[in-house]
Amino acid sequence: MRIAELSRRTGVPVPTIKYYLRERILPPGRETTGVAPRYGPAHVRRLNLVRALVDVGGLPMATVRDLVADLDSRRTAPPPLRDVSARTTALDQREHRETGLWREASAEADALFHRRGWRIRENHPARQQLIGLVVHLRQLGQANLLGLLDEYAASAEHLATAEMRAMPAESDASSALEDAVLNMVLGDVISSTLRRLAQEHVSVGRFGAGGVDHRSVDREPASETG
Amino acid sequence: MRIAELSRRTGVPVPTIKYYLRERILPPGRETTGVAPRYGPAHVRRLNLVRALVDVGGLPMATVRDLVADLDSRRTAPPPLRDVSARTTALDQREHRETGLWREASAEADALFHRRGWRIRENHPARQQLIGLVVHLRQLGQANLLGLLDEYAASAEHLATAEMRAMPAESDASSALEDAVLNMVLGDVISSTLRRLAQEHVSVGRFGAGGVDHRSVDREPASETG
Repeated sequence: MRIAELSRRTGVPVPTIKYYLRERILPPGRETTGVAPRYGPAHVRRLNLVRALVDVGGLPMATVRDLVADLDSRRTAPPPLRDVSARTTALDQREHRETGLWREASAEADALFHRRGWRIRENHPARQQLIGLVVHLRQLGQANLLGLLDEYAASAEHLATAEMRAMPAESDASSALEDAVLNMVLGDVISSTLRRLAQEHVSVGRFGAGGVDHRSVDREPASETG
Repeated sequence: MRIAELSRRTGVPVPTIKYYLRERILPPGRETTGVAPRYGPAHVRRLNLVRALVDVGGLPMATVRDLVADLDSRRTAPPPLRDVSARTTALDQREHRETGLWREASAEADALFHRRGWRIRENHPARQQLIGLVVHLRQLGQANLLGLLDEYAASAEHLATAEMRAMPAESDASSALEDAVLNMVLGDVISSTLRRLAQEHVSVGRFGAGGVDHRSVDREPASETG
């Protein structure tokens, strides 16, 4: 198809498509001498991916460009997690490396992975981030949440497995990777949105309903069910 | 205590504390004529909250200021969710309101809340965001994740209940609200970090290990367990 039809099918304006082509976010079309370049299903898929990452995932364009470059360069590797995970926190971990607290937290993280049977490589950015989080929570006197690490992990694994199952089974290697990245980013947004709603539901039990109508409450406050 | 001791106890430098005082992120100390203002446990707690929101939660200072103002103005209401939830997505929902897709997605969200017994007010920002997400996923042809909404919701509720239980039971009304905000923001970061690690674990089963050592794998790929 030509660029005009690619635009119609995806809802992405032609100037935006041309920008993505210049930035190599979208691979070039098939060139034949004398006619305009032609685009195929891979271009439609890529545009949908980019729109989802930007419009729904809220990722900055520079991150999307890196993600897409990772996708194109490592077709058979696991989804590129580096850049997406980097945005979840502003933790500066450098000052904590090699301290006793860090080594302790590192052993805790490894014990958690062992309990769940997760094989996580030592320099995985999310592993470093988890260790930094444990250190920070201790220092802030917020260690109470650390008692829930196993529950967070079990829940994350349950959802990751479900997300993997939800991927189209017939997809080939390259679109499977794109789907995995999409599921990861969109799953994050769905997950954090439903966390907000669940927290609203649970906190009404503890703090009262504020502006919400109390009269239809017929359940126990959540804080008394455990 | 004086400002120097407040700084020692919390690790926040004196100039930063003075900045927080000017910006009303930290309430003023108790003034007695002729002596320097004195600070108490509420100031320590507030500084820990602000550090956690900024250092771990990665929230911009403007958001922290609004959150804290919300906390101070609505002592008995549920935790202020507005600003924190606003950062989770870049979804522009305005163009979709009042369309058939929107009404359909809205009915779907309400059905989900009904199944879980959640009472969510109609103009809750996260409700609007969930509806916008459903609309976007449909338009992007990524509706497969929508089949998992109930699982995301069940998992979110399970964790929200656990987070609420993990709050110190003896806290008074004002520190309970601060703890709730902290748990919400820190829980988000813990949750998204463990999602990354779980996704790594699960994706190795489907895509192969890439740079990871294969030899210790003794489990079935996750995609075949369901």
